[in-house]
Amino acid sequence: MNPNPSATAFTAALPLAPLGDDTLRQRVQTALDQKTKPQGSLGRLEALALQLALALNDEQPQMLQPQLVVFAADHGIAAQGVSAFPAEVTRQMVLNFLAGGAAVSVLARQHGLALTVAECGVAADFDPHPMLAVLKVPGAEHGTADSTQGPAMSRAQCEAALQHGRHLVAGLPGNVLLLGEMGIGNTSAASLLMTRLTGEPLVHCVGRGTGLDAAGMARKVDSLKRALDRHAEATAPLDALAAMGGLEIAAMVGAVQQAAASGRVVVVDGFITTAAVAVAAALQPRLADLLARCVFAHCSQESGHARWLQHLGVRPLLNLDLRLGEGSGAALAWPLLASACCILAEMASFQSAGVSGRQG
Amino acid sequence: MNPNPSATAFTAALPLAPLGDDTLRQRVQTALDQKTKPQGSLGRLEALALQLALALNDEQPQMLQPQLVVFAADHGIAAQGVSAFPAEVTRQMVLNFLAGGAAVSVLARQHGLALTVAECGVAADFDPHPMLAVLKVPGAEHGTADSTQGPAMSRAQCEAALQHGRHLVAGLPGNVLLLGEMGIGNTSAASLLMTRLTGEPLVHCVGRGTGLDAAGMARKVDSLKRALDRHAEATAPLDALAAMGGLEIAAMVGAVQQAAASGRVVVVDGFITTAAVAVAAALQPRLADLLARCVFAHCSQESGHARWLQHLGVRPLLNLDLRLGEGSGAALAWPLLASACCILAEMASFQSAGVSGRQG
Repeated sequence: MNPNPSATAFTAALPLAPLGDDTLRQRVQTALDQKTKPQGSLGRLEALALQLALALNDEQPQMLQPQLVVFAADHGIAAQGVSAFPAEVTRQMVLNFLAGGAAVSVLARQHGLALTVAECGVAADFDPHPMLAVLKVPGAEHGTADSTQGPAMSRAQCEAALQHGRHLVAGLPGNVLLLGEMGIGNTSAASLLMTRLTGEPLVHCVGRGTGLDAAGMARKVDSLKRALDRHAEATAPLDALAAMGGLEIAAMVGAVQQAAASGRVVVVDGFITTAAVAVAAALQPRLADLLARCVFAHCSQESGHARWLQHLGVRPLLNLDLRLGEGSGAALAWPLLASACCILAEMASFQSAGVSGRQG
Repeated sequence: MNPNPSATAFTAALPLAPLGDDTLRQRVQTALDQKTKPQGSLGRLEALALQLALALNDEQPQMLQPQLVVFAADHGIAAQGVSAFPAEVTRQMVLNFLAGGAAVSVLARQHGLALTVAECGVAADFDPHPMLAVLKVPGAEHGTADSTQGPAMSRAQCEAALQHGRHLVAGLPGNVLLLGEMGIGNTSAASLLMTRLTGEPLVHCVGRGTGLDAAGMARKVDSLKRALDRHAEATAPLDALAAMGGLEIAAMVGAVQQAAASGRVVVVDGFITTAAVAVAAALQPRLADLLARCVFAHCSQESGHARWLQHLGVRPLLNLDLRLGEGSGAALAWPLLASACCILAEMASFQSAGVSGRQG
């Protein structure tokens, strides 16, 4: 299971918890087909119910104590003017998450999702707070270095951030992890990872982020080209992550790995969280088994996201022109996951309800 | 307001409650733009929040006591073999709704939506039940006549069904109506209305309903052609509704009218409920003001629905390959409406949270 068995201190991938087998798949499909509705008429909700049953290895899956974690960090590349917002917004938004005023705060409250802010390297030192997990990495306490000038992280820092994500999830209750993120400049890091991992030309991977104008876009593309040139040798997933990624993305890679290792469902939000899943998938020999645990909540308006989802071979649930991040799309999709479980658990069968089946 | 002022006993349209004005629109847009997120980054959720504010004429709209009504009736045209399921399923599903075992029962329970079954002409007589409203029409107690043989309803029966829908909604609490329907054969009635109201060729308006095979589809298309030929003169909306529609569709037309007259939001489900909204819109001189109150929950897999939504100039929230009806799609979209209201009510502003705005 370990692609790098010579490394004793750090393993790039974790063994995956088993998915439900074909017998379970058939039992769930039969149960869905016997519910009082034309077969398949609940469309993607039925596919979702089957996915959750297999992911949780349970004929009647129940999602317990869902955890939404917003991974936050600052990015050295923000100094290149790649964002419409100043870097201090990362810190300010962490305080906003903790105070309950951000979009994801509102949506998590609406749906009863436990919210944790994982501070992976924000350019600030926060007072303790019950919702705050401080996951700073030595030497990168206030964010990554500027990847146009050198590596964003050392390999050791990248591995430490990843381990932090694993440990955080290992300590969280429940069987569902919803991913969110915050970090001025992190669409730049995600775009760099996308072009390096997928081979897509950079222009297909860069978007307006929080709302760049044309001049800002030109600046962003130029900066990303320079970072790519500087790190041309960083082609392996972890090398690319260290050279051009972000601390919160690295922590999310570890979080996804730990969630998959412990048999959880992962709800993926937008472009940045997809970057983390893509890195985790690239590190995982059984890529399909990792993706089978991931529910892709929505297709972001951020240019590149739709194409990346296609590369991964997955289809998102929602398409609401969102481009906020924070986990807001994951939270908005959450009731659909809950509905899928309710359908399996509570709907009557043709037999139990005395409803006639198809004729002829 | 009344397009047929000579009719004293029955008016084809009702006066609409006023929508919020441009001042309110600007206030809400400003409030959205000052929330701690890049402008527009919550995409269609922001547009939905604005729509709900205007529909409820309230800068901070609150949706109160949402009512999901499943309008059920039988259809004479079912005798032509236009459905994959036998007609007795309408009655059986009404009992399933009341027993809490249908998809819409499960979803309404999940989201705290009050569920009413409006029995508008099912081929059965039901025992009283607290969730059941009996809205039978004299002479059509057990459903419409077969529209391939004659008019489905007399004009008087059609008007009576419509009035029933109005009275039902007038007696319901709350400010949101979610539309659902059940009736074996009712995609046929809706397809006939679509081709007559939009001018689209029949082939663009007919789909597989609950799951017809190729032979069933041929039978359905042939039956609908005969009905269209027989009622070639029924071109006005109410004439078409009486000649080829359904009792539950007529009742929903009235329900939509009453909801719009009393200032409610209407959540539209799939193909059949869209038929009712389209008839109500065709009867309404201020068509856009009626549609402004309607949230289109999803695009059904039923062939024709996407095109009908285009004709109405509206965009649905979800696209989950649903084709069940019952109001299941309306219920699945419900949390998005709730989220839109929460965002307006609860999110912090840049100022209140001390978050910096755009730079440059």
